[in-house]
Amino acid sequence: MLAEIIAIGDELLIGQTLDTNSGWIGEQLSLIGIKVQQISSITDQESAIIEALEAAKQRVKLVIITGGLGPTKDDLTKQTLCEYFKTSLVLDQAVLSHIEKLYKKYRVPVSKMNRDQALLPETAKILPNSIGTASGMWFEQEAVVFISLPGVPAEMKQILTETGFTKLQTFFKPDPIIYKTIRTIGLAESKLATLLTEWENSLELLNLKLAYLPASGMVRLRITGHNLKMIEQKTAELTKLLGPVIYGYDKETLEEIIGNLLIKQGKTVATAESCTGGSISRLLTRLSGSSAYFKGAIVSYDNDVKINVLKVNAQDIATQGAVSQTVVEQMATNARQILQTDFAIATSGIAGPTGGTTEKPVGTVWIAVASEDRVESVKLDLAYKNRERTVLVSSQYALDLLRTTFL
Amino acid sequence: MLAEIIAIGDELLIGQTLDTNSGWIGEQLSLIGIKVQQISSITDQESAIIEALEAAKQRVKLVIITGGLGPTKDDLTKQTLCEYFKTSLVLDQAVLSHIEKLYKKYRVPVSKMNRDQALLPETAKILPNSIGTASGMWFEQEAVVFISLPGVPAEMKQILTETGFTKLQTFFKPDPIIYKTIRTIGLAESKLATLLTEWENSLELLNLKLAYLPASGMVRLRITGHNLKMIEQKTAELTKLLGPVIYGYDKETLEEIIGNLLIKQGKTVATAESCTGGSISRLLTRLSGSSAYFKGAIVSYDNDVKINVLKVNAQDIATQGAVSQTVVEQMATNARQILQTDFAIATSGIAGPTGGTTEKPVGTVWIAVASEDRVESVKLDLAYKNRERTVLVSSQYALDLLRTTFL
Repeated sequence: MLAEIIAIGDELLIGQTLDTNSGWIGEQLSLIGIKVQQISSITDQESAIIEALEAAKQRVKLVIITGGLGPTKDDLTKQTLCEYFKTSLVLDQAVLSHIEKLYKKYRVPVSKMNRDQALLPETAKILPNSIGTASGMWFEQEAVVFISLPGVPAEMKQILTETGFTKLQTFFKPDPIIYKTIRTIGLAESKLATLLTEWENSLELLNLKLAYLPASGMVRLRITGHNLKMIEQKTAELTKLLGPVIYGYDKETLEEIIGNLLIKQGKTVATAESCTGGSISRLLTRLSGSSAYFKGAIVSYDNDVKINVLKVNAQDIATQGAVSQTVVEQMATNARQILQTDFAIATSGIAGPTGGTTEKPVGTVWIAVASEDRVESVKLDLAYKNRERTVLVSSQYALDLLRTTFL
Repeated sequence: MLAEIIAIGDELLIGQTLDTNSGWIGEQLSLIGIKVQQISSITDQESAIIEALEAAKQRVKLVIITGGLGPTKDDLTKQTLCEYFKTSLVLDQAVLSHIEKLYKKYRVPVSKMNRDQALLPETAKILPNSIGTASGMWFEQEAVVFISLPGVPAEMKQILTETGFTKLQTFFKPDPIIYKTIRTIGLAESKLATLLTEWENSLELLNLKLAYLPASGMVRLRITGHNLKMIEQKTAELTKLLGPVIYGYDKETLEEIIGNLLIKQGKTVATAESCTGGSISRLLTRLSGSSAYFKGAIVSYDNDVKINVLKVNAQDIATQGAVSQTVVEQMATNARQILQTDFAIATSGIAGPTGGTTEKPVGTVWIAVASEDRVESVKLDLAYKNRERTVLVSSQYALDLLRTTFL
């Protein structure tokens, strides 16, 4: 059972908006056994939209279209769909009263532009948008289903989750494909590949497929196939082979794994961040419920804050530099006491692009974790010439130091 | 001059990796006058790759392919390209010595897998990859140019920036298209559209196109056309119409605008964050050079940290709650003193999905900014049911409160 996704909007083609919708839809469809074989981003033009619909219809049984349903003038998807499906717009009374109710809730008068959102193609089945004004639309033509959705991610997700996916399962009755993702940290793709050669060779006979997905100091290994038992067995083998290099599976994030370990052990954590600028704190607080184990952070971007708030020895900063083992260890130890936690994670480094020296080039980052009775610290030499990546990888390695050394 | 981008990889279709490459390439190409009319993400299969190349060739003069050039087994682009362009792999001596040099630098032995990266299609011109092992390749067939690039963003960007774009400009001599983006905060898309109706109607006669690009509490307005003078005039009109609702233009971010204003006025800033969990600190430190005006942050996720480190009155937290005007104002005032800055930004709110009450539902966020002589605070009622979005919008509005009220 194959599908394609068409995302409409010039902003996607010139890099002003990142298309996060299609990947999400692809993921959700794969879970119910529908395989997305192509995602296309196309221009806001009638001819381009029609050409894309026509091409997709030749290849697949399901076409999902996002974008171009807003109230403003640059949005022409609805008109184009009417033309393509040879229908016309009619007022949908239920949608109109939903829109009116929504605006009443926001205490804003309903404009003609908003009301026009209730004009919908006559032949379309409506997929309700409970949080916005642009409805989803379901068309059928020559045994192909077309679903048109608004481009606003929250609304698109709401529509599919509330009614779209269930309708698709009922309509197509697809067979699920199975994915297993094994998440690793600390080894490069080619090193992993060498380590796994023999194991990887054993997959082919079992009709399993492996992909390496590297991203910022981490590599995800994805096994795909139809035989759940075989996938589970191969995953167990991999778990033995790689040990602590694996931090999690499937959708688990490092911060989630660490959060769960902290909860299980009844421990708390804080951070003292220099070069990571609050990024570890942000990673940890992304999770709802993180207040159970995360108490707070001190971002000591300026040395004054290191000295006055974190009580790092000023002499040590003067002689060793802020990016040094002694400073990062004091940051961790003192943050733990000031913020009254079981563990504290600290970072101090040179994120670049400026600030590097011969002894301490850009990418030199000290990370440390303190517990009640000891401090562990590691020096990273990151070769990325990208500030954001250096910060992200340092943050992840600092979190991982807590995981591998204390949890 | 039209182009298409083809991104190869199953991970893009099932939502495991977000395709950030294509948007970047689209943006860069638009700046040199090449318009991307379609971006396709396709599956890792020979037939899919060949079909996509063949379809794109019918429509455009330039096809850029990313992904599938890594050393591991799931990468088959190079073999497929050889087949499509009827050529075969030969050893490229220059690329081989580059790879050997690279591994020597990392002090890692070169494996056969790495060395095989120097096997390249005989008819391709090589676009060197100075930071990695997978070379870029330039093919020509029936007056269409095909460029194949590795999927690792940093390497792809390096190759295009070092040689790709210049070669494209020399080869195609394209006419530049002009884009102007006006960045607004605080007004919804439909409100802006109503406000701008008359101005927007005047664009059509001038052959200018307008797009509304909403994203998390901000709306970017993008004017496109060929007449620079007209675009500048219309932008000036818009600037008058919208006033402080506009925070910047083109690629300027809010944190950049604020950073520049702080530098100009010789002022410093710090943050005291509860619900935003370090997100404002992270936004501010994303910029290299931010240490000139950003001194640090105290993330007081736990009330203990509000009381012990930020010296918020415990009685006030008990009677008013942590999410209250008095607490957020104390956070801002005290953080300013503790971190010794001219301004401090504070947030306290309920990011959800849990923790809401009838009086203070999820999305209730207090933001405040303190200076030497006053504190300004605002209560936000954010209707998003998404934790990450609530945090991001709160962070941006808190930053914007500093901009509109003090800078």
